[in-house]
Amino acid sequence: MPSEVYIQNTLELESLLAGSRALVEVELNTLLPSSAITPEKIHQAIRWSVFAGGKRFRPALLLVTGQAFGASIKSLLRSACAFEMVHTYSLIHDDLPAMDDDDLRRGRPTCHVRFDEATAILAGDALQTLAFKAIAEDHQLPAETRITLISELARAAATPEGMVAGQALDMEAEIHQVNGADLEEIHRLKTGALIVAAARCGAIIGGANETELTAVTSYGSQLGLLFQITDDFLDVTATAEELGKTPGKDARTNKATYPGLFGIEETKAAAVRAHQEACAALDQLDRPTDVLRRIADFILHRTG
Amino acid sequence: MPSEVYIQNTLELESLLAGSRALVEVELNTLLPSSAITPEKIHQAIRWSVFAGGKRFRPALLLVTGQAFGASIKSLLRSACAFEMVHTYSLIHDDLPAMDDDDLRRGRPTCHVRFDEATAILAGDALQTLAFKAIAEDHQLPAETRITLISELARAAATPEGMVAGQALDMEAEIHQVNGADLEEIHRLKTGALIVAAARCGAIIGGANETELTAVTSYGSQLGLLFQITDDFLDVTATAEELGKTPGKDARTNKATYPGLFGIEETKAAAVRAHQEACAALDQLDRPTDVLRRIADFILHRTG
Repeated sequence: MPSEVYIQNTLELESLLAGSRALVEVELNTLLPSSAITPEKIHQAIRWSVFAGGKRFRPALLLVTGQAFGASIKSLLRSACAFEMVHTYSLIHDDLPAMDDDDLRRGRPTCHVRFDEATAILAGDALQTLAFKAIAEDHQLPAETRITLISELARAAATPEGMVAGQALDMEAEIHQVNGADLEEIHRLKTGALIVAAARCGAIIGGANETELTAVTSYGSQLGLLFQITDDFLDVTATAEELGKTPGKDARTNKATYPGLFGIEETKAAAVRAHQEACAALDQLDRPTDVLRRIADFILHRTG
Repeated sequence: MPSEVYIQNTLELESLLAGSRALVEVELNTLLPSSAITPEKIHQAIRWSVFAGGKRFRPALLLVTGQAFGASIKSLLRSACAFEMVHTYSLIHDDLPAMDDDDLRRGRPTCHVRFDEATAILAGDALQTLAFKAIAEDHQLPAETRITLISELARAAATPEGMVAGQALDMEAEIHQVNGADLEEIHRLKTGALIVAAARCGAIIGGANETELTAVTSYGSQLGLLFQITDDFLDVTATAEELGKTPGKDARTNKATYPGLFGIEETKAAAVRAHQEACAALDQLDRPTDVLRRIADFILHRTG
């Protein structure tokens, strides 16, 4: 049973995350074209997927990391939104019939089900572009910083070192047999790269030096791994109501997962190891990293 | 029958365009991940579509406009490639079954036919990201310039003022009846925005002032219109061999076109008007705009 201190910390973190989620959603609303503007359908589709009640984990991580390095919320907010836009574009395209063919996302019809496939393809395309535009036109930040952020986001989203590479490997994994090392590589690229980049971009806006960025990278990559392990774990153990999507789908589609490859007990142990290493990376930083630590705790114990 | 001067100018322009095409293709080869790198299939798909023998019209326009403003080829080349990447990503996604459902592009199977739909979606996604990365990491240009170029490219590619908005309107046009004004708006967004931005970005790298940029914008938008009018025209009159794609497809799929709405004669007259206005815009520039003028001539008379 969790300790009282843990419960107290979690409540504080949850209220902090709710606050950051509200800020991010207000800013996203400003950055995205109004659904009353022509062509309406594509803007409605973009907003349908962006405002679907996501956890806003990547923007929160960027905000919290940036604040640990002394950056203001205001200076971080647009970049945080750019990460959410790239994440959402990838979900829209991932859900398409030719990809994962998912009808349900966060408890609602996916973009191509609610609208149509062509609109979903275009909505994802536009969201990616709007992410880069949001950073490029963030006049609070020096041009040099904006360029660095765009480069970080692009590398984390593209191939061969980012998200698209991970998705390509993941699709191959549905056909071929994968081992533990393959699975970690898929996760590192598909989910990890963007999470690492979100943490790094927060730190970059906060003016972190190279040594500090190395520690942030290590924290982010362990956090990403932890996130994916617990995601796989929940897919096996949680209910549809907790997840807002169809559970057990990974097993049915033959997708490689931690529990599938290693069993439940070893999956739990891997989560604990990733959590420990994330915290060890934070120990290297002479900064107020309490909230970053609580995020790691929170993911380790999450139920949805 | 064309005059000897016209033929001479065309030959010179064609050799200049062939030269710029070769430079762009060498640079694209450097910028894109090798097809030997994991995940191989996605990199093969990207290269299949990028190296499909395109005319490289947008990069050529950027290069020629930049040179008119005194910029070096070297300083222009990466941005030129970024425009080609965005253009190619849009073709890959446009050809998908849920969009235009095209099997043939530039005389070869389209990306989703040669590979598969999921790979084509991801290849397009990655190409878009790599375009922004190419500009962000172009260390020859000051950060301020790179930021301006990224903002220009993003606005031209996204919605509500760019390519994706045009594609969304174009799809609606297959269902609803459109008039001449609707058709021009579709073209302005779907094809024109990126062409205008290519010309503007060349001029921006060359240090054009606001007045000059206004003239370049006007030239680019008339050139884009001319390009689309002649494209529609060729779809009605040219053979498959000249086009490298299935002709007459627009009419069969009920797509709004200039000849369909206005007839052949008025379409020819509209092309002549756009050509004249493009040249009139160039008259406002106190720069060596000969090649830009020849590009307009070349498009007016093109046969494929």
